[in-house]
Amino acid sequence: MYSPSIQKLIEQFSKFPTVGPRTAVRFVFHLLKLPKEELGRLSESISSLQKEVKLCSFCFRPFEPFDAAQGCEICSDIRRDKALLCVVEKETDLETIEKTKKYQGRYFILGGTVSKLMKEDIEKLRIKELQERARDVKEIILATNPTTEGEATALYLERTLKPLNIKTTRLGRGLPVGGELEYADEETLGSSLDNRK
Amino acid sequence: MYSPSIQKLIEQFSKFPTVGPRTAVRFVFHLLKLPKEELGRLSESISSLQKEVKLCSFCFRPFEPFDAAQGCEICSDIRRDKALLCVVEKETDLETIEKTKKYQGRYFILGGTVSKLMKEDIEKLRIKELQERARDVKEIILATNPTTEGEATALYLERTLKPLNIKTTRLGRGLPVGGELEYADEETLGSSLDNRK
Repeated sequence: MYSPSIQKLIEQFSKFPTVGPRTAVRFVFHLLKLPKEELGRLSESISSLQKEVKLCSFCFRPFEPFDAAQGCEICSDIRRDKALLCVVEKETDLETIEKTKKYQGRYFILGGTVSKLMKEDIEKLRIKELQERARDVKEIILATNPTTEGEATALYLERTLKPLNIKTTRLGRGLPVGGELEYADEETLGSSLDNRK
Repeated sequence: MYSPSIQKLIEQFSKFPTVGPRTAVRFVFHLLKLPKEELGRLSESISSLQKEVKLCSFCFRPFEPFDAAQGCEICSDIRRDKALLCVVEKETDLETIEKTKKYQGRYFILGGTVSKLMKEDIEKLRIKELQERARDVKEIILATNPTTEGEATALYLERTLKPLNIKTTRLGRGLPVGGELEYADEETLGSSLDNRK
């Protein structure tokens, strides 16, 4: 049995995504070996995280407000096309799309997926906020993941947004660039046939 | 690109064992979603860790000193057999053996392994401290891992301790309890044949 301080931190780390009790133990022993200053810096970074970082009131992306700004760097960028809205499941998906430098519209972070159209699942998502943002745009790209949950969510959103009469699109399906036919799964290969040009 | 506070914490988490940049990002977004109080508790646990936890001056196990004690709960337990010393590579190995409740001697945490008998590797280990502790014991159990590094370390320790003329033993090799022959590797099966009784 580990000592109380160690045990407490193990339990706290065990709540991290992908971290089980064994990994949590390794984390704690790693921290025990760090120089005192580094441990202090980590503790400080964690405690100041929520103080420094706010959610953008438009897209819900975490950002650090500059000049008392209300929106994040992307949403307040006047060069961005406000008629285009890209809906993603979560924060990291937004950053991944942003890295391609191919998208010049704005984003909206839905906050998850609906897998079985459960009422609890749907209530957790930012559906109402999306409907509000949707009124002022011409096209909504439903950039949910190509997974069962992502597909179900896109279908649900399409139905929800239909009364607003806005063009909704999805990300193209096909072979990943640099991949080989031999290793593509049937679904992907099928989509790449459908999307041939 | 993530905001400075987020980026900084991603870099800090990336230094954790088994954590890559992707997992570090997930950790940070997980923390962003936590209630403020929970984040404060985590930060507090981390900053107080090294203040609360000391290394036992005998076995180097991390523990929280009670009544200005110098040694940990195990080392200061008078029921423990002081003539028996179990050498382990790291802290978690000690706790794993302790859980079996089969061992009534004391421990010594070596602090790692020597894989290629590199001078730098050896200097990091607590060899000198082990030699000091060894003088007062009758048997030393070299409980290093049954890996290449662990075996090399055990051999190195055996040679190092030889001049002291103390009985050194190793943990028995064989089939894991509950395992099946079919899934045992050749080395393990070979050892289990050698150790048949």
